[in-house]
This record gives sequence, C-alpha cells and structure tokens, in this order.
Amino acid sequence: MISQTVEYALRSVISIAQAGGRNITAEEIARNTRVPVSYLSKVLQLLVKAQIIMATRGIHGGYSLTKSADSLAILDVVNAIDPLKRIHGCPLNLTTHGNQLCSLHRRLDAVLQEAENVFGKTTISDLLAESPVHPPLCEVAQVGVPVTVGAVTV
Amino acid sequence: MISQTVEYALRSVISIAQAGGRNITAEEIARNTRVPVSYLSKVLQLLVKAQIIMATRGIHGGYSLTKSADSLAILDVVNAIDPLKRIHGCPLNLTTHGNQLCSLHRRLDAVLQEAENVFGKTTISDLLAESPVHPPLCEVAQVGVPVTVGAVTV
Repeated sequence: MISQTVEYALRSVISIAQAGGRNITAEEIARNTRVPVSYLSKVLQLLVKAQIIMATRGIHGGYSLTKSADSLAILDVVNAIDPLKRIHGCPLNLTTHGNQLCSLHRRLDAVLQEAENVFGKTTISDLLAESPVHPPLCEVAQVGVPVTVGAVTV
Repeated sequence: MISQTVEYALRSVISIAQAGGRNITAEEIARNTRVPVSYLSKVLQLLVKAQIIMATRGIHGGYSLTKSADSLAILDVVNAIDPLKRIHGCPLNLTTHGNQLCSLHRRLDAVLQEAENVFGKTTISDLLAESPVHPPLCEVAQVGVPVTVGAVTV
C-alpha cells in the first residue's frame, strides 16, 4: 500500500529535518536512512523537483528542507512521490453511476480517505516530537552518542 | 495505494458472484468488468492459484467462486493478489527499536491496519447487498435489462 520509494522519501525528509537546518550530504542521509545510495539519489531528485527539499552546492553544501518541519505534512511527501488517488467517480465510467460510487469503490475510497486524514494532519516535526525515547532513525538522532551502522561504529 | 491488479481482481470476483453459481466465461467477465482481456487472463490465473475461484472446462464451463460470497472478504482477494504488509518491526532493523515502532512507522502501520479492518469485515455479498440502487458493475447486474457496453447494446 505504501511504496518503497515513499518510505525512503519519508526517511530522507526526517533525516534532513533532524539535521536542524544545516546542510546534510547524500552520504550522511544514506547512512542515517539505510537507503541504498543509487536509490537514494533518485528519491532526493524527486524531492528537489517537488520543492520539498533543496540542494546547495559547495564545500558546506548538501540538502535542506525548503520550509520548516512543522509546516510539512507526511501527505506532502507522499503526494510528491506517489500521490494518493482518491476515487471521485466510477472507474468503469458506468453512466448509471456517474459521480455516485458503488459499494466497492466506496470501501476502497474510505481507506484512501483515512490515509489522507492520518498523513495530512501529521507533520514531520510531530514525528520527531512524538518519539522522545525512540525517534525515527533514532540511532542517528542521539547527538553525541556513537552511531552503530551494521558492525561499524562511526 | 490499491494496485490496478487488485482493483481488477475485485471486479472479477464481484462479476463471478453476480452470476449466482453458474459458470461465467472470461469473455463475459471482461465485458462486465471492462478489464482488458489480456490483463484479465493474468488476474483470473492468480485468483485460481489462490483458490478464490475455480475454472471448469467444457461447453458450460467457466469460472465460479470456490466458496460462498458471504464467506469471502475483500481482504481475501487483496491478500491473494497483493498482500497488505503490516509493519511489525523496525524496517531499518535498528537495534534500539526492536519490535517497538517509531512514530513514522506507527503512522504508516495505522493506515495499513485500517485497510485490514475495512477489507476484513466486508464480504463480497455485503458489497452486492449494500448497493441495491447502484450495485457494483450495475449495468450488468440488472437482470433482463439490456446492457450497454460503450456504444453497443448487447
């Protein structure tokens, strides 16, 4: 139901938000999110294109959010990558249905509506604030604590 | 969120249920569901393999459900084609998370849980009973009324 690309994009956005305003490199994001580098490159491009994040070149370059984490909802990231397609009319184009959904499509759309609700009302800063003990990507969120990636402490 | 193949499988199962026990041919299902014949063939094979439907050869052959429509849930069809993958543990394998989901994965799983609930408690016969005015695939459900497919009345 939630594509791998969306999952990776959400991890990336959280990692960038956790950097707290400083530019974060693709290598750091890959390490934090455990997204394969080649896949991450595509995800970051999509997020830049959707103006969720921006890239800065140079020695202190990297990625940052285009707006604050408290005004960026999960839904913004989902819709930038793989938009939720609510069902507004009969997908079979049945003339007798018109804009009225049958029982099947009402059920399918109910699930999409719930996803839209949950994702629309949750911001990236909500996600960071709600898990003080186990924040997303927590092994990289504990500033000053060594980070273990696989068997390597960095 | 809901794949095209799942959507087509649900339409197919509803069409077979609407046949009320008689074997229905792939051509009839294609006409009722408006699924392209080549795609439908793949979908029917998946449903047969999952033992949701069975195929009978011969002059009155065709497809029928393996069990009654009131004991077949939407979820059975979804899971036969593109299973809902609930999130039971940290997808990043973070040792500090273990089986506790972070705020991100709790939200993603909440949507999957809602889908599982809605789809699990709704049977195919519920779908047929709930839309007396506009049942699924209604232009074929009105027995005795000519069916218009595109510009052709059959």
